[in-house]
This record gives sequence, C-alpha cells and structure tokens, in this order.
Amino acid sequence: MASSVEEVRNKQVILKDYVSGNPKESDMYVTTSSIKLKVPQGSKAVVLKNLYLSCDPYLRIRMDRIQGSNVFTSFTPGSPLSGFGVAKVLDSGHPEFKEGDLVWGTTGWEEYSLITEPEQFFKIHHTDVPLSYYTGLLGMPGMTAFAGFHEVCSPKKGDRVFISAAAGGVGQLVGQFAKLMGCYVVGSVGSKEKVDLLKNKLGFDEAFNYKEEQDLDAALKRHFPEGIDIYFENVGGKMLDAVLLNMRPHGQISVCGLISHYNLNQPQGFSNLLSLIYNRIRMEGFAVFDYFHLYPNFLDMVIPYIREGKIVYLEDITQGLESAPAALVGLFSGRNVGKQVVLVSNE
Amino acid sequence: MASSVEEVRNKQVILKDYVSGNPKESDMYVTTSSIKLKVPQGSKAVVLKNLYLSCDPYLRIRMDRIQGSNVFTSFTPGSPLSGFGVAKVLDSGHPEFKEGDLVWGTTGWEEYSLITEPEQFFKIHHTDVPLSYYTGLLGMPGMTAFAGFHEVCSPKKGDRVFISAAAGGVGQLVGQFAKLMGCYVVGSVGSKEKVDLLKNKLGFDEAFNYKEEQDLDAALKRHFPEGIDIYFENVGGKMLDAVLLNMRPHGQISVCGLISHYNLNQPQGFSNLLSLIYNRIRMEGFAVFDYFHLYPNFLDMVIPYIREGKIVYLEDITQGLESAPAALVGLFSGRNVGKQVVLVSNE
Repeated sequence: MASSVEEVRNKQVILKDYVSGNPKESDMYVTTSSIKLKVPQGSKAVVLKNLYLSCDPYLRIRMDRIQGSNVFTSFTPGSPLSGFGVAKVLDSGHPEFKEGDLVWGTTGWEEYSLITEPEQFFKIHHTDVPLSYYTGLLGMPGMTAFAGFHEVCSPKKGDRVFISAAAGGVGQLVGQFAKLMGCYVVGSVGSKEKVDLLKNKLGFDEAFNYKEEQDLDAALKRHFPEGIDIYFENVGGKMLDAVLLNMRPHGQISVCGLISHYNLNQPQGFSNLLSLIYNRIRMEGFAVFDYFHLYPNFLDMVIPYIREGKIVYLEDITQGLESAPAALVGLFSGRNVGKQVVLVSNE
Repeated sequence: MASSVEEVRNKQVILKDYVSGNPKESDMYVTTSSIKLKVPQGSKAVVLKNLYLSCDPYLRIRMDRIQGSNVFTSFTPGSPLSGFGVAKVLDSGHPEFKEGDLVWGTTGWEEYSLITEPEQFFKIHHTDVPLSYYTGLLGMPGMTAFAGFHEVCSPKKGDRVFISAAAGGVGQLVGQFAKLMGCYVVGSVGSKEKVDLLKNKLGFDEAFNYKEEQDLDAALKRHFPEGIDIYFENVGGKMLDAVLLNMRPHGQISVCGLISHYNLNQPQGFSNLLSLIYNRIRMEGFAVFDYFHLYPNFLDMVIPYIREGKIVYLEDITQGLESAPAALVGLFSGRNVGKQVVLVSNE
C-alpha cells in the first residue's frame, strides 16, 4: 500500500545488545531510519518531535535482561532506547492532544517518535520555566523526589536527612525539599565541585565527597553525631551498609535507586542488616509511576517555589542525539553535574 | 551491717564471656550463690521465685558485644543471663505487687531474683491456661507475632503469607493468626517432623523443609506461583534473598528476627535488593517492646481463641535450670520443636 505522506530521516539511538556490567558507549549506536510525520488514519496515535531526552539511572536496568519486575521492562536490542523526554506534537489522532502541544512522557531516543498510546503523556501548561525542566525538576525526577520524600517518608521539621547521589537529578531536589521543611540536610557526592555546589548553590547544610572518605561510617558519624532520621537512598552498596549503622530509632529509608547495584553481577555483602531490628527501621522501595496521580499537587507546590527562587535546579545539558550514549554512560561514573539532559532539537 | 534475714542457695546460669560465632553450652556455666528472700527495707523491689524461663533467639544478640542498638543491651560476663520468664512474687516493696502474685517479664536465669524495677512486669490474671504460656503464646513471643503481623503489616483476607522458622515460638502463632484472617499460609522449617506439625497440628496450608531444598527460589515459586504478599522474617540470609525474588508488588516484609545473622562474623551477600524497587516492597524491623501497651488488646483477642480451641501452641519444655544452656544453644540448630521453655520450678 503506497502512501502519499512523505517520509523524513529520523536519527535514532539503538541498543546493540543486552548489557552486563558497566554500560559503555559502544553498547549503543546511532543510525538513521525514516518516519512519516502523520499518524495513520483512524489511529489514536501522535507523532512527536523530540526536544529534550532525560538520562536517568533506571535506564541501565532496562538495558539488562529483566526478570521479576512489575515496574520495568527490558529494551529490545536492535531497537531505539526510550525514556522520559519533552516533545512537541506534530500530528495527533488522539482527542486530548493537538498539533503544537508540548508534552512530557516516555518517548523514543530519536528525532521523531510515533506514539501509539499517548495517554501516558502530560501536557505542559507552564512555559515560563525552561522546557528542559520537564525532564527534571518538573518531570519524573521531580515527582520522584516529591513522592520518595513526602509520601514514602513522614518528614518533620528538625529531622536529620541524608541523601546519596545528592547532586543528581533527584537528590538535589530532595535536599531542597528537606531544607524547605526545616530539616538538617547532608548529601554525599563524588567530587569536590559537587560538594561546593551542594553547600553554596543548593543550600545543603553539609556535603562530603565519598571518594575521599576512607571510612563511610566515620564520615556519617561526623555529620550525624546523633544519627539519621531519613535516608534517601540512590546508590546502595557500601553506603547503605554504613547508613544502616547510623540510623536513629524508627528511622526511614526511602529506596529510590541502587545505582551501585545496577552494574553488579555479584551479590553485595551487607553486614548491618540487623540494624533494621536494632533501630526499628522502615526501608521502602517505591516507583514514581505509582504516584503520578499526585502530579497536579506537586506542581501546585513547586511552581511557586520556582517563581520565588526558593528552588534552583542544576542541569547538565549536552547537545545533539549523538551525545546521548556518552551522556547516559557518564551517569555511572558521576561525570554529570546536575540533571543530565540531551538537547535533541530546539522548538 | 548484719541482717536477720536468712539467705538461701540460688542456682544461676552465668555467661562466661562474650560470644562470637555459634553459641556453645560451654559459653555458660551453672553455679550457686545465695540470696535473701526479703526485699531491702524501704525499697520498691520485689523478690521473685522463677518458675519458667524463656529461650528466645534474641538472647544470642545479648551475648555479643552490642553496638548501635537502642533495643538491646549486652549481658555482663560473670553475671547471670536474663530473659523473659514467669515467676511468683515472694516479697514485695512495690505497691502494685504483693506476695503470691504471678507475673511475667524479664527476670534472671536463676532460681530467685531480686528485681529492683518491677514496673516492667505484667501480672498474670488468667490462670486457666498453662502458666508456661506466659513465656510464649501469652507472653513476649505472642505479642511479637501479634505486633509484627497485625501492626507492622496490613494483612487482609486472601493474602499469601510466608513465615520462616515457622514452628518456633513466634512463627507458629503468626501462621495461626494469618489462617484466622483467611490468608494462604506457608511455613519453612528445618525438619520433616516440623513440616508435619505445621500442616497437621497448626493448620498451615503448606510447609517445607528448607534443608531439603536445593533451590529456595524454586521452593518458593512452587508454593507461591503468584508471589508472596507478606513475609514474616525470622531468619534472614539466603532465605531473605530468595524471598526478595518472589514478593508481589507492594509486598510487606516484617523483620522480626534474623537468626542466621546473629552468629555471623562475615557479611551476608544479598543479590536481590533491587526487588525492593522492582516490587515497591516495604521492609520494616520492629521491636516488640514498642507494642507492649497493646497487651490488653492482644489478650482480648487471643484468650477467647485459646478457650475455643482455635489456637494451639507447641511447647518444648526442658526440666531444671541446668538444662537451660543446652536449650538455648539448641535454638540455633533448630533442635527445639515449638517454643523452647525451661521449667525452673513448679509453684
């Protein structure tokens, strides 16, 4: 069946094969296919022009052969990756979307995407903030920080809050949310530059570079002589083990990510699990997808803070789809400073 | 200052030194000291005649040098162990206790104990049940099962419940509480005899002997093809790792004990911590001490069940204080069948 609709070239980032261990740029390649910029007649699909793509640690999980998850599905080798992004609707067969709408949601790592089930997209109404924020502060990472801190935990004024990967897309927000509540906030990061940003830009009370600490337990005891009420967990591994030794009674651990586990083939040894009992700790894994119905509440909270300058957001934006594989891989060595975003195209 | 009060001989179980690794009978010894059976004048102490002593896995924790716990304190080498027990008040300087009262609470591993802060003791009002039950079903283990299942978790009819160490003092009750709620209940134990007891005496739907399973993950998948809603955790280690692979979304893990960790000097490796996120699992350690204010509610629930024969309780009672070290050590090889109790003296 011939079609009268013209095809355009569509650059794509393809997953070569399932990844084990640390992801490498060579696990992906950039190729060019073609796409029609009209939805098939009668379908409820939309065609998107992708503007920003979000590099998030959970994408590493999807590069693996996944078993036993109701949250994540594997990418398909030979096909483009997908992830959260900001896009413009070029054509729509869906009553809720029209040409020119700006949206954010899960789209392809490519210039243009045909989305057959566009219901998962959020329409962007506030455009007096950088559009890229909808991959971060106002997108999935923002909702993750909000849900994992305010919904999974029960923070209160004066709580002692520790955040790992604290300069990342989620961690930097958790710290600011906690400061806005009157908590004492310390973050761990992987460079001196990030320590400075946390203390001088993001308003954390303290920060330390975990790479320079011989003894994480001692580092935590230095910053939390009376222990930790809330740990926002992004990394797992040795840090989690050290934190378990330093939790206060009835402390809460919100398990957002375990970035140090994503690349592991061997089990991680934990010495300090008994602390769960010793200190009656609640440790809860969550998935932001369960909280998206709260997005309007989140916007109501956060938009005024942005306008009043009470929340800042650090982004690390690379230019062009070709830079996406390196940007994604860089997350796992902590190369990014702030939320890692790929600019695919300006509007 | 001479006293006119006669001293009597007092057999005691003494901790020789801090224990590392598996506890042995030789870590304790039985000796005889002496005690006056009257409280010092003007004190609010009580003198108890100990009737039953309770062997509980948490005692192993107290045999160690404990760091970082607000729940447990170490025993003192050279002094008697202490633990939950049932006792009769021989003399009292405290207005709430009088001679002849039967009580349960933390007492010494000895024939007679002088208790200087008797407020922690519960008076025994229902004596139409075996007195030994106040070391188990109607004592700390019963409250532990109640709090860890009904308060820490949110069980509902039809939930799929898995219990490790399921023939022990706590596990056997959790299974029966869960059955009374209409849950599907499976227990793991360490012998064929215990499997039979769970299925034929305690009303569990299924049970298996973990020592006969090559692959715990496969055993759990056989019994829980649709996964586990609630795991009542008594053992930790490999079992916890296998359970993490088999939890249903939003499943709950009530961490009551980690008996396989108490004797470990090396960290235990966990492969499957990512399941916390994959399946949004809540894992919560608790200490029964936080729930003792609910003891009256617990009695209101459980006493009628006992009278109606809807709850049974398996006890493994050894005779005489001399048998206490072996009884305690036997917990860690699973030698006991049911709640391990030491009969010190009949009333």
